[in-house]
Amino acid sequence: MCRWMVYVGDPLVVENLLFRPVHSLIDQSLHSRLGVETTNGDGFGIGWYGLGAIPAVFKDINPAWNDPNLREIARQIRTPLLFAHIRASTGTPVQRSNCHPFRHGRWLWMHNGAIVRFAELKRDLMSVVDPSLYPEIEGSTDSEALFYLALTYGLAEDPPGAVARAVGLVEDLGRRRGVPRPVQMTVATSNGESLWIFRYSSEGRTRSLYYSTDVEQLQKLYPEVEVLRELGPATRFVVSEPLRDLPGAWKEVPESSWAVIGPGGHKIRPLTPIGPG
Amino acid sequence: MCRWMVYVGDPLVVENLLFRPVHSLIDQSLHSRLGVETTNGDGFGIGWYGLGAIPAVFKDINPAWNDPNLREIARQIRTPLLFAHIRASTGTPVQRSNCHPFRHGRWLWMHNGAIVRFAELKRDLMSVVDPSLYPEIEGSTDSEALFYLALTYGLAEDPPGAVARAVGLVEDLGRRRGVPRPVQMTVATSNGESLWIFRYSSEGRTRSLYYSTDVEQLQKLYPEVEVLRELGPATRFVVSEPLRDLPGAWKEVPESSWAVIGPGGHKIRPLTPIGPG
Amino acid sequence: MCRWMVYVGDPLVVENLLFRPVHSLIDQSLHSRLGVETTNGDGFGIGWYGLGAIPAVFKDINPAWNDPNLREIARQIRTPLLFAHIRASTGTPVQRSNCHPFRHGRWLWMHNGAIVRFAELKRDLMSVVDPSLYPEIEGSTDSEALFYLALTYGLAEDPPGAVARAVGLVEDLGRRRGVPRPVQMTVATSNGESLWIFRYSSEGRTRSLYYSTDVEQLQKLYPEVEVLRELGPATRFVVSEPLRDLPGAWKEVPESSWAVIGPGGHKIRPLTPIGPG
Amino acid sequence: MCRWMVYVGDPLVVENLLFRPVHSLIDQSLHSRLGVETTNGDGFGIGWYGLGAIPAVFKDINPAWNDPNLREIARQIRTPLLFAHIRASTGTPVQRSNCHPFRHGRWLWMHNGAIVRFAELKRDLMSVVDPSLYPEIEGSTDSEALFYLALTYGLAEDPPGAVARAVGLVEDLGRRRGVPRPVQMTVATSNGESLWIFRYSSEGRTRSLYYSTDVEQLQKLYPEVEVLRELGPATRFVVSEPLRDLPGAWKEVPESSWAVIGPGGHKIRPLTPIGPG
Repeated sequence: MCRWMVYVGDPLVVENLLFRPVHSLIDQSLHSRLGVETTNGDGFGIGWYGLGAIPAVFKDINPAWNDPNLREIARQIRTPLLFAHIRASTGTPVQRSNCHPFRHGRWLWMHNGAIVRFAELKRDLMSVVDPSLYPEIEGSTDSEALFYLALTYGLAEDPPGAVARAVGLVEDLGRRRGVPRPVQMTVATSNGESLWIFRYSSEGRTRSLYYSTDVEQLQKLYPEVEVLRELGPATRFVVSEPLRDLPGAWKEVPESSWAVIGPGGHKIRPLTPIGPG
Repeated sequence: MCRWMVYVGDPLVVENLLFRPVHSLIDQSLHSRLGVETTNGDGFGIGWYGLGAIPAVFKDINPAWNDPNLREIARQIRTPLLFAHIRASTGTPVQRSNCHPFRHGRWLWMHNGAIVRFAELKRDLMSVVDPSLYPEIEGSTDSEALFYLALTYGLAEDPPGAVARAVGLVEDLGRRRGVPRPVQMTVATSNGESLWIFRYSSEGRTRSLYYSTDVEQLQKLYPEVEVLRELGPATRFVVSEPLRDLPGAWKEVPESSWAVIGPGGHKIRPLTPIGPG
Repeated sequence: MCRWMVYVGDPLVVENLLFRPVHSLIDQSLHSRLGVETTNGDGFGIGWYGLGAIPAVFKDINPAWNDPNLREIARQIRTPLLFAHIRASTGTPVQRSNCHPFRHGRWLWMHNGAIVRFAELKRDLMSVVDPSLYPEIEGSTDSEALFYLALTYGLAEDPPGAVARAVGLVEDLGRRRGVPRPVQMTVATSNGESLWIFRYSSEGRTRSLYYSTDVEQLQKLYPEVEVLRELGPATRFVVSEPLRDLPGAWKEVPESSWAVIGPGGHKIRPLTPIGPG
Repeated sequence: MCRWMVYVGDPLVVENLLFRPVHSLIDQSLHSRLGVETTNGDGFGIGWYGLGAIPAVFKDINPAWNDPNLREIARQIRTPLLFAHIRASTGTPVQRSNCHPFRHGRWLWMHNGAIVRFAELKRDLMSVVDPSLYPEIEGSTDSEALFYLALTYGLAEDPPGAVARAVGLVEDLGRRRGVPRPVQMTVATSNGESLWIFRYSSEGRTRSLYYSTDVEQLQKLYPEVEVLRELGPATRFVVSEPLRDLPGAWKEVPESSWAVIGPGGHKIRPLTPIGPG
């Protein structure tokens, strides 16, 4: 089970986000409590929007807690939009090209979950990927496949629709191949302006996904937490499990839903897979 | 341009093969003279038949000359059949799953060359791979794709026929897509009993491939070369460029040919691609 | 807290030792139960006696559970004497030269524990290392320093005496510098013929160390454990925590003791530090 | 033979410095022409002054040309003062702690050259390092030893004097130990405000070191070189070999000299080693 986090808000030095909160992603990778696996040591990655329109990614196969370069750059980068992911492999190789977030042009994508029995479904799923996109696939994971299916279905124009179609394709193919519950996912994707998040599983029991509530309220509740004071009112965190033990700070994203957080505020809507044909 | 070498003969400690010859693979990776690229620092691998029927592979993305573990195990492994490969990436990621040799069951495979404009052809080539084999593909190279196409076409039963069909498929697809000379390859493959080698390119100007002549003759010509004295009469080397400067020691594999070296001696035959349909 | 294991016995394929036992070293690195740290992901190493008199070491900074090369070579190496170690760094860099086992000529050495406040003591300790040995030190750990101090004090001639003097030096220097309990250690060292193990701490509360009892008795008690059946009567395991849950199979090495296991049987004796001067 | 480069000037995106110039450091690592070794593939590092007073370092043991993370962060970092170094090991392990630049507080340090027969001199040189500095030494190179000797001798207060004393110590010790020409070095060091460079060898035949002349003159001479147009008048490059083939653009730092480039302009002075005692 992977872990991921998104920060949206005023530009902030990445170190504050990754290393300062008591129960940061790095800590979670060593001391995760809710996950099936006891450790997430199969690579990590961060992605952020900084100089230029194309986001940057920094990914490596070392455990995040061992990577001195991660600590170095975390002190040097300010960003209004950060993705962070720690991977627990479910079988595909531990290699940089399998680490999240994935990038295509201005888009970032990261995923926790699985396409169940992906090895059996992969060949057919890949044959649906648009020929112009196909050569960009560098790794071998279900997560990257899902990204390129969503891109094929128009992620750049209609993110919720594209993801609904990608999910619908996997549901349809999976069931035809005897995989009763093929999809398990929480996903974050962004173009640098808005952030879309998705929580969905075939069985309706999806891994956890939370977003932070009003920061001002948090600041009042927890005046002793220094990092909170630096955060502007538009700040939002989305996390695969709560970032710290702050009761009242987190709301769960409902089952089978998507949400968008952007310049026009945020909204949450149901996610209904759209089957092919 | 990659480099590769095969040793077939009496069981020998790998160190003698990789580190002792003056112009060994390791040296070549630093001081290659014939190649387009001046350095082969994009990963390396060795494969060998030892304990059990399944060959072992040791592959890493460090430059071979920097890998202390390679030197350690080279002193501890004896084998009658060694593959060694040093990679120069032509664009696909530098990751272990893209390093040669590739393995499937008892089979090893390594390649120097390219499927030209592979990114454009990959999706269609992959759709030909047998569904039962497809999930085993871990990397993203043209070399591994060629291996799985050959496996799909019956490598285990008829290696020359299977490779001829794999090559024929690439030739056919490439030309239909406007790639006039899609194939450039020297290949070695083995099941642990026999070794098959291939030299072929669409344009008939394939990268070099040599095999060693009679060892006894070599021993007489170069009595001062210690490692030669340890080699039995059945020893054969196959190399992508000559292993040492031993005039008279090497014969070039002819253009558009395959050869087999095995318990029943060796033979060389023409390679004629077999197109699909 | 590191983990380590030694196997002494009939030549055995390493895979059986590292990957087969239910509670193997690899498992421990993910699911350790007794340690302070919940994970040992800061590098690993194995050392073994095989071809030639000089032992081989295979060490890397990846987590052991992620290293496909470790699995490959574990299937290809047979040895009568294996060291295996999984590191949890206490601050020194995660780099191969800090991974155990350390080697000097025919000697292997590995350690769990610490020289307390080593940074303060290091300069003076290093100045005691014999000038002919000093240049061989590659890493920066207390464990390697202890090894070179023991070598300086004659490890090759009298292992228990040399370790007693190395420990005595650290005790003496530490106390003069205001470190009340400077030594915490379990150590294994070998020349390929005998194995010496040490359990000692300044405070007399040393981390755990166990050795296996009679194998025949084990085989009778646990007839269903397949790997036990392959082990000869002279087999001994020494482990920093029990290798599997086999009640009655393990005896604790007493506090402040050393033991030797060799061709002439084994014995256990008290370890009394010998101070300098 | 290592390669290094310093950029001082208006804040510039690192990508322009590392990847854009035709004959950049990265290119040099593959196609070096003047060096003894044909390749510099034993690790690399960059150091820069950015957010905060403490400079950042990004160092890795992969070849620089293979590191996708280097390309990513190079597009995201702007700095007025960049160190870049590509290492060719002369024997010490290829590990991050041996990569340049080294850092202590606000100071960066990088070196090309060697303390000749360092293994024999190391123990005595290290015993001179200030006890409060000693614990910070992480690697095993002569370059880092030289840095800590200079720090011991007051680098922060008087860089030229401190380096003269460090060099004098090595000269003195080396000659007493029968090393006739112990020092070979070009060095760059900075506190983020000024840059000091050194060129010195015992034999008076030091490896090359160049600095760039007036940028405006360069811009007139080479109007077609786009990156030159972005550079302000205060820009200076210092390189271990010329960064591009721009005749008239580079001046050689004289033998046995040091120079400082800072807010008050620059000056060049002779470097005379100051022996101990």
